Amino acid sequence: MDQWDLALVQFAVTPRKEENLLAAEAAVARAAEGAELVMLPELFNTSYEVQDWPSVAECVPDGPSCARLSAMARRHGIYLLGGSIPELHDGRVYNTATLWNPAGELLLTHRKVHLFDVDIPGGITFTESDFLAAGDGFSVVQTELGTIGVAICFDVRFPEPFREMALLGADVVLLPAAFNTTTGPVHWELQLRCRAVENTVYMAGCSAAPHPEVGYPAWGHSMWVDPFGTVAASAGREPEIVRGHFDRQRLEEVRSALPFLRARRPDAYERVEVVD
Amino acid sequence: MDQWDLALVQFAVTPRKEENLLAAEAAVARAAEGAELVMLPELFNTSYEVQDWPSVAECVPDGPSCARLSAMARRHGIYLLGGSIPELHDGRVYNTATLWNPAGELLLTHRKVHLFDVDIPGGITFTESDFLAAGDGFSVVQTELGTIGVAICFDVRFPEPFREMALLGADVVLLPAAFNTTTGPVHWELQLRCRAVENTVYMAGCSAAPHPEVGYPAWGHSMWVDPFGTVAASAGREPEIVRGHFDRQRLEEVRSALPFLRARRPDAYERVEVVD
Repeated sequence: MDQWDLALVQFAVTPRKEENLLAAEAAVARAAEGAELVMLPELFNTSYEVQDWPSVAECVPDGPSCARLSAMARRHGIYLLGGSIPELHDGRVYNTATLWNPAGELLLTHRKVHLFDVDIPGGITFTESDFLAAGDGFSVVQTELGTIGVAICFDVRFPEPFREMALLGADVVLLPAAFNTTTGPVHWELQLRCRAVENTVYMAGCSAAPHPEVGYPAWGHSMWVDPFGTVAASAGREPEIVRGHFDRQRLEEVRSALPFLRARRPDAYERVEVVD
Repeated sequence: MDQWDLALVQFAVTPRKEENLLAAEAAVARAAEGAELVMLPELFNTSYEVQDWPSVAECVPDGPSCARLSAMARRHGIYLLGGSIPELHDGRVYNTATLWNPAGELLLTHRKVHLFDVDIPGGITFTESDFLAAGDGFSVVQTELGTIGVAICFDVRFPEPFREMALLGADVVLLPAAFNTTTGPVHWELQLRCRAVENTVYMAGCSAAPHPEVGYPAWGHSMWVDPFGTVAASAGREPEIVRGHFDRQRLEEVRSALPFLRARRPDAYERVEVVD
């Protein structure tokens, strides 16, 4: 399909799982009207309170949250990126995204690879690796919408996996995320736009909105960025459904104008030297 | 040296080589007051008129422009990044940058690796590879100011060499450049800021100002970006000397807060797959 629409569901995630699942179901029902692909935020079924994760983690894909996601995709006949949820696997907890097709079948699973460990004096301190285990790779999947890649939040800090996904044919990369009010204003749009243009791919970043009962100050600003690095649609911090349009002709035009993927010089990247 | 100053010389390059060399000498003399490192723009001794390059190309480092650069560095006791010049080598023309120490000795040579081939309908069309040969690697050099890497203009589009230079210890990357009025407003600051923060390095971009006798619409906006991705100093399009400050403590603080270079996952970048 060369033209399709997507909807990024930015909603205020609470500390209560069932309330979040009901809110997601209601919002996905609205978002699915006029969208072929709908996307939820990182950790959409629990808040970004790390101490809660072991108790709310579930199996993927055989847990109750995945069953609800599969049912949403099938009910509305949409592709659904189920944000991410805390996944329990072999006694460890992962931050895991799932992509479902309109038949409610699981297409792709991504466990967050780069855990969020930052310490900005006067800003935010967070050590996700104290609570979570890290994934060990990235995937893209061919669908009737095009080739879709998935990464989660802090993964966007690292150019390498986005390059690899683009070289494997990704047309769009979906990034459920939860930047905060320290790094969000300075780096969120910057990194999404740069990953988009340097790889000439569409980038979708979907964040939670802040909630008064949740300590983590989500930046929101869910965003759809085109392959030229232009922000095509964006939210503020409040709950909102952001709607974007995928246009394969636009993608091909940008790749013809800016042939970055063809102009790479891997031979030269292997010859980076310290000179005496 | 943990604290030092640099000056980016944004001047209006003309089609006349001797006039450009005299203007560069005068501007470098002013810039050198209170700066340990001075930088000139891409192709500072000729304009960005590709048809002129074969006739103005010189040997590096044994040509007259390099002799003048060496003398400027020695005269003012500064590190000097001699922008870039068309270099003649084995019958081919390269776009070549040179870095000189305060004794006037050549420390590092960089031949532009990624040639500027873009075709934006209604914007700019340019095929640098019709006229130029491409370099085959990148270098960093250890100096008393810190470890310095060099790249040229379109090289900034590609994350790979900047990552490699940072992993080899680069504290700052110098990028003589000449973005234009099509891509400059949308991508120049974006790419400089993103390369800076993703690698936690200082980035210096130095461009020519536009000149009425030159067809190429230089974007200017020479810029000093700190390792947090913040624009610390910037010009507009007019001739200007942009002054920036290098602070090793700031660099170390950012690298402690945002440990991207340590948090890379090369094992995961090798496991990027197309799933069925």
